[in-house]
Amino acid sequence: MRAFTLLQNIRVVLVNTSHPGNIGGVARAMKNMGLSRLVLVDPRQFPSEEAVARASGATDILDSAQVVSCLEDALVGCSVAFGTSARERRIPWPLIDPRECGVAAVQKSVEGGEVALVFGREHAGLTNEELQRCHFHVHIPSDPAFSSLNLAAAVQVLTYEVRMAALALENAPVAPRQEAVVEEGDLPVTADEMESFYGHLEKSLVEIGFLDPASPRHLMSRLRRLYGRAEVTRLEMNILRGILTETLKAARGEHHKRGKTDV
Amino acid sequence: MRAFTLLQNIRVVLVNTSHPGNIGGVARAMKNMGLSRLVLVDPRQFPSEEAVARASGATDILDSAQVVSCLEDALVGCSVAFGTSARERRIPWPLIDPRECGVAAVQKSVEGGEVALVFGREHAGLTNEELQRCHFHVHIPSDPAFSSLNLAAAVQVLTYEVRMAALALENAPVAPRQEAVVEEGDLPVTADEMESFYGHLEKSLVEIGFLDPASPRHLMSRLRRLYGRAEVTRLEMNILRGILTETLKAARGEHHKRGKTDV
Repeated sequence: MRAFTLLQNIRVVLVNTSHPGNIGGVARAMKNMGLSRLVLVDPRQFPSEEAVARASGATDILDSAQVVSCLEDALVGCSVAFGTSARERRIPWPLIDPRECGVAAVQKSVEGGEVALVFGREHAGLTNEELQRCHFHVHIPSDPAFSSLNLAAAVQVLTYEVRMAALALENAPVAPRQEAVVEEGDLPVTADEMESFYGHLEKSLVEIGFLDPASPRHLMSRLRRLYGRAEVTRLEMNILRGILTETLKAARGEHHKRGKTDV
Repeated sequence: MRAFTLLQNIRVVLVNTSHPGNIGGVARAMKNMGLSRLVLVDPRQFPSEEAVARASGATDILDSAQVVSCLEDALVGCSVAFGTSARERRIPWPLIDPRECGVAAVQKSVEGGEVALVFGREHAGLTNEELQRCHFHVHIPSDPAFSSLNLAAAVQVLTYEVRMAALALENAPVAPRQEAVVEEGDLPVTADEMESFYGHLEKSLVEIGFLDPASPRHLMSRLRRLYGRAEVTRLEMNILRGILTETLKAARGEHHKRGKTDV
């Protein structure tokens, strides 16, 4: 299933947001992560120019945002709700981290269910009653000494994890390296090409007087370790061989030297 | 090892930030995730009241922020730098996602290295030259149709992943990698030592006639990619510098040449 479809079932619910700028920041974060459904429970000020400014182009999400008067209305149609929460709560509840939330939300969406990610007030979070309407509590693992995230930042973390989970499920490469077209020059060189390079390198080092064949010590083995670790590509090998060829010419006084030819 | 200690080695670098509010948002995100070292490369406006307002109490991070004039200065002492990037770049480079970045940054910190997370301008990101100073490029997997995150949101995602990785390591029952005895020569070199090496390398390549300063093409950036990927140790750096020194002497005809001294 495509990530796009999975994300359509996942809504963001903001409860009693005080600062309209935060609503705009949330819209931007959602659109960046491919989410589109925003539900506002009794926002202090909405619509708002400040929200539009902070949304930086995610105005379609603001325009289609649904405004309701209580959390219950915001959760209509949802089969699971995740409520963000500080760690310590009097009522014990299933407490998960954002990564687990992303995986669980996408899994529910795959099953055809609708999902809500619920965020509380800037200073007071969600009430216990609101938290009890959520199936899971999500705690962002912030520093206990400075634990309160900006609202848009909290939405960013959870929607990022939702997107990571959706991409993983889609089998879309999360790491774009898999997608990259491999060019001929990016292919790794073979072991025999490396051996040939080491021979050329050793000869050059002797020629410039850096390696004493009578007392080679561990020099070549250390260089083998360095270049072996780098997994040299064909293009890079061409460069390295070119450098050695010019080094040998220079050491033998064969090459055209800038400034010296005029002397 | 405690997460706190691991996070101390990891700095956030912001390049040419336009909006001071974003600097405040970044400081808050960092402090939420337990990071404390902020370096600002040529910010448009700093210090700023707007930054203080958006920092919501993370003013200690703003107060201790270091302001420098170029990225090179911001990376002094770092053994690895991660540069945030849009997906498509002309020069191929190791491209990882935020999760891989978090794990790699913490691993480097465990090994005693200092780490930089580098973020570019609000609209233009990092230049190719700046990206080439970074060992890895990190791409936040945003929706390609609306891919540009708010600066503080991008910092939130990466620092969240760094914290998740640090907590995982702290909670891991055994982390055998920490036990390995690391010898002085096996320690990674710092970014400034690498820069100094690249300068020496470039000079040598010009001197032997391999690099034409009038038409350098991508030669140095390809070599940066190769040696950056190898994560050169101190001992290896000593060898590489020694080779360059002897190459320069040979190219200048200064050194004792076997067989030729008798001619």
